[in-house]
Amino acid sequence: MSNLGFVHLRVVNPYEASFREARSAVGAAPLLKRAEEFKSVAEAIADCSLVIGTTAAHNRELHQPLISLPKAAPLIRRRLRSGRVALLFGSEKRGLSNSDLSYCHWLLRIPTREEHGSMNLGQAVAVCLYELARAANSGKHAKMPPDRQKDPDGPASAGKLDRVTELLLESLRASGYLGQRPAPAKEEKIRRMVRRLDLSADDAETLLGMLRQIAWKLQIQD
Amino acid sequence: MSNLGFVHLRVVNPYEASFREARSAVGAAPLLKRAEEFKSVAEAIADCSLVIGTTAAHNRELHQPLISLPKAAPLIRRRLRSGRVALLFGSEKRGLSNSDLSYCHWLLRIPTREEHGSMNLGQAVAVCLYELARAANSGKHAKMPPDRQKDPDGPASAGKLDRVTELLLESLRASGYLGQRPAPAKEEKIRRMVRRLDLSADDAETLLGMLRQIAWKLQIQD
Repeated sequence: MSNLGFVHLRVVNPYEASFREARSAVGAAPLLKRAEEFKSVAEAIADCSLVIGTTAAHNRELHQPLISLPKAAPLIRRRLRSGRVALLFGSEKRGLSNSDLSYCHWLLRIPTREEHGSMNLGQAVAVCLYELARAANSGKHAKMPPDRQKDPDGPASAGKLDRVTELLLESLRASGYLGQRPAPAKEEKIRRMVRRLDLSADDAETLLGMLRQIAWKLQIQD
Repeated sequence: MSNLGFVHLRVVNPYEASFREARSAVGAAPLLKRAEEFKSVAEAIADCSLVIGTTAAHNRELHQPLISLPKAAPLIRRRLRSGRVALLFGSEKRGLSNSDLSYCHWLLRIPTREEHGSMNLGQAVAVCLYELARAANSGKHAKMPPDRQKDPDGPASAGKLDRVTELLLESLRASGYLGQRPAPAKEEKIRRMVRRLDLSADDAETLLGMLRQIAWKLQIQD
């Protein structure tokens, strides 16, 4: 909750021992300190204009509309503009009872595998709040694919790429990977490969330093 | 993981006691039984063509592009069509080390409050996988992520990139560009540079052949 910016925790009849233990959670101490305790669901949600129950929705006859989390989030956000919304979670073991659910306007479900529907309580809360906070965080489109994002120094100049290529060819000749006789087709292939590396100016400079040293070492030893 | 339809768990040097305890998680027993253990990050990600680190990204100087989860998910889903993607999570206490991060193509961050950025590990995993499964989820249930063989003309696997890196480091040591003593910071820098090259499987193979010859020649002459 605290990670995702939700600060109003209300608990109904908490098991006091575990609840006190939870106060040690890193970073969330202020939130837990301000948590309000209630004796019943009815009291806890009294000032909310929308109450939503969470359920894994298996083996249970549901009497309310069931909405999947991605579709529920915009409805919840809209209602939050004009009033308080309660998102109800049951206990780890049993979830919400039919009585608890009867206080809800509708129910929400995190889309999970049919074979393994029921989630850990803490993880379910994190996922729901992430989705509620998500709209504010997501742009419409992904930026440039990250594997295209190079250093801010910009792409290497053609001249620098050419020096990288020449030093690489020199090292390959000195190592015996290329023969001493000119081999235009092979050299062109290597030249094209160096261009595909899509080097930034900085990386090209680093590579030049490496190749200079390698070529020098190979040649003095010849 | 199991709730959201992700079934391939790989663990690196798990703390055996806790790892065995975790086997009792309700419904996830088959997944944990099939979890593969590895001795190093490099081995765990060897067959992946995209490796993404997760970070709260506070108090740390980052050397890779950082993308927020809602924007990262479509990029990951696209890459999953042609190969395996590794999503790397660090330990609860310390997260990923700089060495772990140096194996990553880019980094991912769950948008959290500035005042309380660092999330619980299990919750962070749940939120990431929820977002990855989210698009397929306008319907009722999460679909299983595709698990197909890598397209031969696609990006180089992490294992191949690692061999390129190791042979490059070997050549740099033999040439005198790097000293004989371990220099983790320099080596991590080089590892990141190799990831930025955005090598295809074919080009990585070519580069491996070149570096093998160069390393061999430098060493026999030493």
